[in-house]
Amino acid sequence: MFSHNKRLQYTVRVSESNPGLANLLLEQFGGPQGELAAATRYFTQALGETDPGRKDMLMDIATEELSHLEVIGTIVAMLNKGSKSRLSEAVDSEAEMYRRISGAGNDSHVTQVLYGGGPPLTNSAGVPWTAAYVDTIGEPTADLRSNVAAEARAKIIYERLISCTDDPGVKEALGFLMTREVAHQQSFEKALYAIQPNFPPGKLPGMERFSNVYFNMSQGEGDERGSWNSDENFEYVSDWEQQCAVDGGSGLPEVALQADEKSLVAQTMQRTRSDPQQDPMTGAMLGAGGGNGIAPTKSVRR
Amino acid sequence: MFSHNKRLQYTVRVSESNPGLANLLLEQFGGPQGELAAATRYFTQALGETDPGRKDMLMDIATEELSHLEVIGTIVAMLNKGSKSRLSEAVDSEAEMYRRISGAGNDSHVTQVLYGGGPPLTNSAGVPWTAAYVDTIGEPTADLRSNVAAEARAKIIYERLISCTDDPGVKEALGFLMTREVAHQQSFEKALYAIQPNFPPGKLPGMERFSNVYFNMSQGEGDERGSWNSDENFEYVSDWEQQCAVDGGSGLPEVALQADEKSLVAQTMQRTRSDPQQDPMTGAMLGAGGGNGIAPTKSVRR
Amino acid sequence: MFSHNKRLQYTVRVSESNPGLANLLLEQFGGPQGELAAATRYFTQALGETDPGRKDMLMDIATEELSHLEVIGTIVAMLNKGSKSRLSEAVDSEAEMYRRISGAGNDSHVTQVLYGGGPPLTNSAGVPWTAAYVDTIGEPTADLRSNVAAEARAKIIYERLISCTDDPGVKEALGFLMTREVAHQQSFEKALYAIQPNFPPGKLPGMERFSNVYFNMSQGEGDERGSWNSDENFEYVSDWEQQCAVDGGSGLPEVALQADEKSLVAQTMQRTRSDPQQDPMTGAMLGAGGGNGIAPTKSVRR
Amino acid sequence: MFSHNKRLQYTVRVSESNPGLANLLLEQFGGPQGELAAATRYFTQALGETDPGRKDMLMDIATEELSHLEVIGTIVAMLNKGSKSRLSEAVDSEAEMYRRISGAGNDSHVTQVLYGGGPPLTNSAGVPWTAAYVDTIGEPTADLRSNVAAEARAKIIYERLISCTDDPGVKEALGFLMTREVAHQQSFEKALYAIQPNFPPGKLPGMERFSNVYFNMSQGEGDERGSWNSDENFEYVSDWEQQCAVDGGSGLPEVALQADEKSLVAQTMQRTRSDPQQDPMTGAMLGAGGGNGIAPTKSVRR
Amino acid sequence: MFSHNKRLQYTVRVSESNPGLANLLLEQFGGPQGELAAATRYFTQALGETDPGRKDMLMDIATEELSHLEVIGTIVAMLNKGSKSRLSEAVDSEAEMYRRISGAGNDSHVTQVLYGGGPPLTNSAGVPWTAAYVDTIGEPTADLRSNVAAEARAKIIYERLISCTDDPGVKEALGFLMTREVAHQQSFEKALYAIQPNFPPGKLPGMERFSNVYFNMSQGEGDERGSWNSDENFEYVSDWEQQCAVDGGSGLPEVALQADEKSLVAQTMQRTRSDPQQDPMTGAMLGAGGGNGIAPTKSVRR
Amino acid sequence: MFSHNKRLQYTVRVSESNPGLANLLLEQFGGPQGELAAATRYFTQALGETDPGRKDMLMDIATEELSHLEVIGTIVAMLNKGSKSRLSEAVDSEAEMYRRISGAGNDSHVTQVLYGGGPPLTNSAGVPWTAAYVDTIGEPTADLRSNVAAEARAKIIYERLISCTDDPGVKEALGFLMTREVAHQQSFEKALYAIQPNFPPGKLPGMERFSNVYFNMSQGEGDERGSWNSDENFEYVSDWEQQCAVDGGSGLPEVALQADEKSLVAQTMQRTRSDPQQDPMTGAMLGAGGGNGIAPTKSVRR
Repeated sequence: MFSHNKRLQYTVRVSESNPGLANLLLEQFGGPQGELAAATRYFTQALGETDPGRKDMLMDIATEELSHLEVIGTIVAMLNKGSKSRLSEAVDSEAEMYRRISGAGNDSHVTQVLYGGGPPLTNSAGVPWTAAYVDTIGEPTADLRSNVAAEARAKIIYERLISCTDDPGVKEALGFLMTREVAHQQSFEKALYAIQPNFPPGKLPGMERFSNVYFNMSQGEGDERGSWNSDENFEYVSDWEQQCAVDGGSGLPEVALQADEKSLVAQTMQRTRSDPQQDPMTGAMLGAGGGNGIAPTKSVRR
Repeated sequence: MFSHNKRLQYTVRVSESNPGLANLLLEQFGGPQGELAAATRYFTQALGETDPGRKDMLMDIATEELSHLEVIGTIVAMLNKGSKSRLSEAVDSEAEMYRRISGAGNDSHVTQVLYGGGPPLTNSAGVPWTAAYVDTIGEPTADLRSNVAAEARAKIIYERLISCTDDPGVKEALGFLMTREVAHQQSFEKALYAIQPNFPPGKLPGMERFSNVYFNMSQGEGDERGSWNSDENFEYVSDWEQQCAVDGGSGLPEVALQADEKSLVAQTMQRTRSDPQQDPMTGAMLGAGGGNGIAPTKSVRR
Repeated sequence: MFSHNKRLQYTVRVSESNPGLANLLLEQFGGPQGELAAATRYFTQALGETDPGRKDMLMDIATEELSHLEVIGTIVAMLNKGSKSRLSEAVDSEAEMYRRISGAGNDSHVTQVLYGGGPPLTNSAGVPWTAAYVDTIGEPTADLRSNVAAEARAKIIYERLISCTDDPGVKEALGFLMTREVAHQQSFEKALYAIQPNFPPGKLPGMERFSNVYFNMSQGEGDERGSWNSDENFEYVSDWEQQCAVDGGSGLPEVALQADEKSLVAQTMQRTRSDPQQDPMTGAMLGAGGGNGIAPTKSVRR
Repeated sequence: MFSHNKRLQYTVRVSESNPGLANLLLEQFGGPQGELAAATRYFTQALGETDPGRKDMLMDIATEELSHLEVIGTIVAMLNKGSKSRLSEAVDSEAEMYRRISGAGNDSHVTQVLYGGGPPLTNSAGVPWTAAYVDTIGEPTADLRSNVAAEARAKIIYERLISCTDDPGVKEALGFLMTREVAHQQSFEKALYAIQPNFPPGKLPGMERFSNVYFNMSQGEGDERGSWNSDENFEYVSDWEQQCAVDGGSGLPEVALQADEKSLVAQTMQRTRSDPQQDPMTGAMLGAGGGNGIAPTKSVRR
Repeated sequence: MFSHNKRLQYTVRVSESNPGLANLLLEQFGGPQGELAAATRYFTQALGETDPGRKDMLMDIATEELSHLEVIGTIVAMLNKGSKSRLSEAVDSEAEMYRRISGAGNDSHVTQVLYGGGPPLTNSAGVPWTAAYVDTIGEPTADLRSNVAAEARAKIIYERLISCTDDPGVKEALGFLMTREVAHQQSFEKALYAIQPNFPPGKLPGMERFSNVYFNMSQGEGDERGSWNSDENFEYVSDWEQQCAVDGGSGLPEVALQADEKSLVAQTMQRTRSDPQQDPMTGAMLGAGGGNGIAPTKSVRR
Repeated sequence: MFSHNKRLQYTVRVSESNPGLANLLLEQFGGPQGELAAATRYFTQALGETDPGRKDMLMDIATEELSHLEVIGTIVAMLNKGSKSRLSEAVDSEAEMYRRISGAGNDSHVTQVLYGGGPPLTNSAGVPWTAAYVDTIGEPTADLRSNVAAEARAKIIYERLISCTDDPGVKEALGFLMTREVAHQQSFEKALYAIQPNFPPGKLPGMERFSNVYFNMSQGEGDERGSWNSDENFEYVSDWEQQCAVDGGSGLPEVALQADEKSLVAQTMQRTRSDPQQDPMTGAMLGAGGGNGIAPTKSVRR
């Protein structure tokens, strides 16, 4: 069960109204790398988890991320506090209001008109948050890796946001949130490596002959070698012929159809066949009457 | 530039038509952990990358994932080949067709009616693929971790699908695709650790006093300790008072408003105040006329 | 700041594994009327609210809805607990596994294969949760009405789910969750009517001559009258001529274009004009070569 | 069956081209509180309704909302009429065109480039309309409340848009549309209260002991009391212990697993256990080689 | 302005309740090829259109498609009429209700539980309708082609649905709706070819040397020739070298950066370089402790 | 199987950094008419196709569209190359960075902050790509028409983008991409008309009496006639009475319910009836206490 304490995890001190900055910060409120994504990611993992240590850790961190969602949302609310009342009281002239809402330097018209200056669960482009951002699949050696990566991404987005504001109170609170991602990443790393073995993830072994092959499928000026495709670590295959049909078969698909299916497939093929023998008049040819400055195309010329 | 060879990377041999299995396999065609997500993830990273080694590796693997998309999509097409013609030729009775389409044991009615038995870019529930699945953010120490995690997830989904079919040709091809995820994960790991340092990701240092704190925010029976929150690795904070306002401030948000903003905020508050002194008649009270077998609720009784 | 107590708000006792029921219950976990939608709806309103009474109430109820999200998610996890391990350990034969996953009586194949038996933030069809479900607009007389309606909807969905299970522990926990929606609705009603006046919502008066008009725009057998369109309450307008251009104007749109714009519009119109004087050969005519059992259509016959 | 009269319900008179304003107005064309959402909301309810009075009213209002969709879309088309031809004729220099499309003061580049100046079914941020906005659930005491709330929200969005333009013709038409929301809200209120009882919605009674409890789950400076949580109306529970496991149970979830399930769960737990006894080397430790200006974190120092 | 006549365009006569069939028919109610997509496609085109003939035709057909939306939605409502009351009155035992809702032969549990048996704007998989289905771009020679294609697709979906039911009244009404798509396609074809020239669409000429080239980019067994790539109509290019950098340049991208940009790019590259000289220990190596039945992979063995 | 050549199909030469233009070009990278939509459209058709000629052609063109996706994405990467490093190195002052990111003339703040200057699979508004853009249905006479239309739309979007830049290298590459759409359209037209007959699409004949009827459903000033609704080609029906219930029936829906269903429907209707005889007090009346400058509405006055 959750409880709420009215004090924030980190005190929010905002210097002045700034709806444009508020809009930018939505990235970490309702954006793909934001705090709702983090909180729901760990919360849903915790519910499905049976290992007591991981379950506890996931719920600890989920709860903290919810508290971070509150911090970032509160910053947005503070930055919008002035403009929210300006809009709801409609004291400016219409031209002035339009200029404020649509003006240069921010993208906040949606936030203002649609959400009334409250913090919506969208990213900074106004795209609604979707659970498609949450990549939990219910297997710890995969999910913990996903968590490690998610913390790394969130750390970077905070870093970018910090570079975009000189409001000291906002910078400081963002710095705290960024730092916590670093701490969380370390916990997830510990929990991952406390499972041994954890690689390859899951239970099924791979096919040994393909586990350490590297297919050099992009070729030309710029081909590079390093530990990620070195001869020490991988069998490096550059010949395109050897990249095809690596099982040694024909490389062509087949399915064993039943007799009635075969005859139906033949019937469909016949009915919908594009006859290669004819050269039909087409709609494009009907439409290429000429005239608008382009040469008639070859097929039309005929 | 891409070129296409008509031979598949792995020969596909399907034993019999099975639209239900086809539907399940869509998970790795147009699902969140599937091959389109993998291919576009690495392809977009490659385009934005400037490091020659990583750029080459990302494009190699993106190209292979496109080739895997072809393999899995071809399996789907083979499994649907019979039913596709059965539908387009409409030779069954309507009742038989309805039974086939909606019948027990598969969820393929959407695939059949809407997509005509072709492989659509949806997951196995019919949810269209979305780029919200791709979590690239343009910073290699984060993106490579995301790639490592993505390969781990994809490996697991293939493992689950392999457990659901006893068609030997399908099992074998899925096994190949699963194995390649293991190989790719190793390449991404090498490329990540070939950047030193790569932790914390990015450039900005964290706030040192919060980098190794662990907040025990979920408490009660089931609290556990391990390396992820041990005293050796973290400062472990369990007291809820010490989890709040960790900056030492009030924990309450503030914003410095301009004079006119202040007066507008006051005006809005006054106009939209929920007066705590009155106990108003409400719509619910109007609607709780009684009668449908439930006791009037307390507020209504008055 | 949030804290978490490991005990649930309501004890969850599940009689047996049932992935099909688990899947159905997702409707209130990650569905449009579910607990995540409720929690985020009130939480985002609380952050943007300045009235102290409403802000406190919204955060109280948001916190409770998070606790409900935990209860419903925990039920899902318990119902899936057996099947989750069955899948990850892959001890059944493949045919048996396929039958379990895709079998009649549930739609849980996505939940099992993609999410590994954990509770995902989707509805029971597998559609990922989206913030488009949250209709907060930042104005209390509208948002409180939205909350009243949301509680009413959630109450009904729980009622339907209760009708679908005879597991006594699940029924009881769902009954608790359903009851709380009733309590919340009452709080929101009180808070709404404690704002006076609250109708019409907002600040701008309407145009008096159109505020109590009822346009009878759907006509024929089945026209009904009641207080919602009675002469006592509304001016009832049935004449279609009087429903058009009610301002007394032409009903036709106009825009004052600048001279250069006018000439450009004329140029576009000329260039893209569908000439009504000619009767062109068309692509459909080219394609209607006849033969497949249908009469040539009129336009083709010519 | 629908018929269309070429005259609008309200005459649209636009003073001058203004693609930025056009873009803003899309909020009520293809946005969540817009006219398509309103029309489809009532139309789908009407189709499923069996009560003759409500069915008639819902279709009347659905038809009017379609007519409003036409009015707001026509305003958008008029505001874009000049820029649409400017674009399709490409008479400006490229730099001038770029400035117009991307310039300060509007967000219309998507509308212009992608939709060619026509009115698309998106909101003002370009997010495509989704039926996830429509919250109809097929139960009148819930749906009518949803309709009341939807009309209240739409009224507010129009109010905000009116504040953003001084074009008198646009203001007047928006004023008409806003006013009609007020009229519709009144009809829906009448229809709701003409069902008695309508609260609680649905058929199932709640659990009486929880119907009038208020859980004070957010605590601290700012706790407020009012009719929404007063002792007269609610049993007010502040003690966190009394908020947990309110059924009197343990608050811990349980499920009765079959013997084979139990052993499989144990097997999974063992295989994927994060061992709390060891303190493993982690990927983060490998990556924290030091150097980029931050102190090595605690876990790394060891 | 729209008006509504309570009579349908085509009389709907349904033989018996059938929620599974209702669910299937949603494909043409709220699916991508369905009637809402058709109606909104033509309606939005009509609003933006300036040519009087096309504007009139588009609005005629949009109005008819709305009337079709009503017909298909009414069929769904009739098919669900029994089950809707069965659910809302909850007279069956829970086990019976669960069986009905989740049972074999349909996918209607979402429709029943979430939408209460009303017709929702989703496809038959429960995916909410999205304006992303509407491909209008505001240029008639493209939009009319899109309309021709949309009518062709809708015709096919109706054909498939007709094959799935033997309810004579449903078959007949679907047959009517299917036929009207054929009529509409003919009107759109006429309107397209009444613009001359209409190919290539738009104003800008192409680059003549690339207008009739066919790149044979997929090669191997199965290469075919026909009028779509014949020497009469196209310059057929098979040599992969000649398919690259067809402008005669290097095929490599370049951008002229400013001096400070160049130095920043170099700095980023240095900081985030994956060093090809070292062969680092990786997280995967840490995690591959061996033991779970798979051979250690090559990179780990070292 | 795909292979990749590091040379682009067309050499990309960009004159200077321009994140705003980069953002605009995303329309053809991850937008609805862009190259990913094109490539996946043809690729999925190719996989499901059995006709050898079409299968070959579809894979040829899919491969080329992938190569175009690379060209347009590379242009975006080049235009962002400077700003990407500027952001990741954070050398500007915060105010300067904010101005760059949020400044007038572009909408690139999302691209920069969230995607780090890499090319994301979104349109120019930041909306993630969705497979809902792909309208493949698995029937060649429909799909080829869809392809023809898709090429026409893509050609137009390129035309608009070309009008927005004067960077000669960008213009030239966009011109190449635009031209190829013209070539592809011609191939698809040939392949379509090489199926005879191809109209009406599919197998089922229409109902002859409705195949050439034109319903004039939008009436008033502006009614036009042309070949699309001429008497030569269509039976033109203007009388609204003759547009209803064209089958000659009542136009009213009916369903044959079983006895128990009938009684349940009656029960639901009774329970949820809106009583037309009473004029209830409503929530709106409770809330219209007067005061805020608007006249009390009629229903409230009573």
